[in-house]
Amino acid sequence: MQLTYDDDNIFSKILRGDIPCFKVYEDEHTLAFMDVMPQTPGHTLVVPKESAITLYDLSDEATLACMRTVKIVGQAVQKALAINGSTVFQHNGEEAGQTVPHIHFHVLPGSLFGIKGHASGMAEPEALQTMADSIKAFIDGE
Amino acid sequence: MQLTYDDDNIFSKILRGDIPCFKVYEDEHTLAFMDVMPQTPGHTLVVPKESAITLYDLSDEATLACMRTVKIVGQAVQKALAINGSTVFQHNGEEAGQTVPHIHFHVLPGSLFGIKGHASGMAEPEALQTMADSIKAFIDGE
Repeated sequence: MQLTYDDDNIFSKILRGDIPCFKVYEDEHTLAFMDVMPQTPGHTLVVPKESAITLYDLSDEATLACMRTVKIVGQAVQKALAINGSTVFQHNGEEAGQTVPHIHFHVLPGSLFGIKGHASGMAEPEALQTMADSIKAFIDGE
Repeated sequence: MQLTYDDDNIFSKILRGDIPCFKVYEDEHTLAFMDVMPQTPGHTLVVPKESAITLYDLSDEATLACMRTVKIVGQAVQKALAINGSTVFQHNGEEAGQTVPHIHFHVLPGSLFGIKGHASGMAEPEALQTMADSIKAFIDGE
């Protein structure tokens, strides 16, 4: 079944500025911000501004834009967390565990093995803001 | 520390044809084949022909080529496994759990949550060939 895009999802609202986020990076085609239910501290999301549910719906132009932002954010996350490794992953479809129907790339410091899924609760806003500032500093400093 | 690329790694050998693989797709810039230590049946790898250790070393051209192949392979994997979901992930650096120092994208049917890492042993060659043929059929049929 091909789902149709519904712009009432949370990432669409964040992209429109209807709800806030802990932003670390933005350009013409993408936005990167902290996952508010982090699987580990430093867990960051990259979303395209193009409306697409899965990778398979996303244009090549938006795909490359996302990957460019993933590269920028991933290197900054590694520096901010002082770890020499990062994992990039993304889920396509409910059967893959996708929870928000707007494609998003997860950037995680270190390894994802042992990660069971989203945290059970929201992280503290102050901690998220501090983390976002730390990551941003490594992006702006480049 | 910036590692230097060593073409003695297994994916480099596969790309040169020095050792075989269970191929599902190949184009000018990429090769896709079955992971011989699958985390779940249908686990497929996409590698660029460009020599790069991590995503952060990979050119934008090769990155887009990989993502195009991931899209082709991911949709075929979903069809071959009759599951409406797939997960894409890739590790950068030993601290992320990267085991082969040539960048590779994992394509997994369904979800990766609960996945603990590579299987402890090789899958049966016959099972891998059957799976590769099944995935290939959905690529060739498109």
